[in-house]
Amino acid sequence: MDSCLKAGPSPSVNDSRRSRQEAMAQTRRDLVLRAVRQAVADGGVTNANVRDIAKRAGYTAGALYAYFPSKQALFEAVLADSLARAQAAAQSAKVAKGAPEGAFAARAQAWFAYFLAHPAEAHLLLHVLSSDGRGLGCVGEELATALMASLAPVTQALVVLGCSPMLLQRETMALLSMAMGVLLIHDPSKLSGTNALAVEALASYIESVQLRLVAAPEQPAQALAPEGFAQVDLFA
Amino acid sequence: MDSCLKAGPSPSVNDSRRSRQEAMAQTRRDLVLRAVRQAVADGGVTNANVRDIAKRAGYTAGALYAYFPSKQALFEAVLADSLARAQAAAQSAKVAKGAPEGAFAARAQAWFAYFLAHPAEAHLLLHVLSSDGRGLGCVGEELATALMASLAPVTQALVVLGCSPMLLQRETMALLSMAMGVLLIHDPSKLSGTNALAVEALASYIESVQLRLVAAPEQPAQALAPEGFAQVDLFA
Repeated sequence: MDSCLKAGPSPSVNDSRRSRQEAMAQTRRDLVLRAVRQAVADGGVTNANVRDIAKRAGYTAGALYAYFPSKQALFEAVLADSLARAQAAAQSAKVAKGAPEGAFAARAQAWFAYFLAHPAEAHLLLHVLSSDGRGLGCVGEELATALMASLAPVTQALVVLGCSPMLLQRETMALLSMAMGVLLIHDPSKLSGTNALAVEALASYIESVQLRLVAAPEQPAQALAPEGFAQVDLFA
Repeated sequence: MDSCLKAGPSPSVNDSRRSRQEAMAQTRRDLVLRAVRQAVADGGVTNANVRDIAKRAGYTAGALYAYFPSKQALFEAVLADSLARAQAAAQSAKVAKGAPEGAFAARAQAWFAYFLAHPAEAHLLLHVLSSDGRGLGCVGEELATALMASLAPVTQALVVLGCSPMLLQRETMALLSMAMGVLLIHDPSKLSGTNALAVEALASYIESVQLRLVAAPEQPAQALAPEGFAQVDLFA
């Protein structure tokens, strides 16, 4: 048909088909990820199962497996989505004009606030990180990369604070550690009391990092490593 | 019999019986806790099951259930034991004479070093803390109390650093958060590389807390709470 060959503003059938397929895939993904989040919020991470998630999303378990081969794949898809949202929250955190050094605190807290405001996603993140007990290195290359990428706005702000390039990744991972530890120790689903303590704990940490970086931006904290750590291969 | 009525250095039959029973109970407990630790070290927390643990300890599952009513009870018994050992390590950490302000770092790092040196126990602690995703408040009164008690030597050292009584518990919980987060993000079973990063992350944190407490011992870090936290019930 002529219309198929014509170049111009109207898209080809192939383009339209691709757009439709992408829109359908995105809708399906949104439906499924929402179902996972609801299942986790309602029954906890441990009780969430593919059959229940499929039902909530309007699929049979078999159909869902065609798109997500395992519960782990479902969880990781939700987490990739959460991390993108937390990153966007950090990136768009308000920083007072004329005080760019405030960006570290503002962005780090906005990132953390995302997970405080979405406790089911926080639980999921903690669950995936702790399930094999082997740290960030074993949660899957993709998720580990997504986690660090999610904190990129914070890493950029650390540069403004004078953090040396050598220490950027370490400071970012230390912040991630503190944020995860605070979520683990405090209950992110309580919107007062304990949660206020979680906010304060992270705010204290951020203030501490600022003080330390301003005091000695180029130095890692090596001086304090005590005799008790002698058996550990320090600074390898 | 006369010998039963005699007061003096030789113990009564009742005393002896009690001693024997206590010694037997302690031996049984040690055997079982060792079996739990081995099962976790070999197959991970998720795969550890009562049947396997019973077999390793030389019991039938049924006999073991008479002493420990659930896997959770077994895990909590191991953790109570780990926490007592970590506390002892913190309490006996060497502090340079004439520099009592070094006690905070020395004790905190000795406590943390216990879990770095016992990765199976670290995994177990992370697992119990994260399994219900409801924070410290839901791990069982006994374990929550044991966790904070385990850090008592650190809390005492915070007093020396000038930490106000009002903030003692918060600083202790913040340290606990950081320690757990570092164990979660880094792999405690790796005795180099990643583990060195874990040591550094905690050392940095400790140095930061020292700096912050010396700079302003009486103030919690409230000033930094940003607009992004407005929806949270701060400082309730």
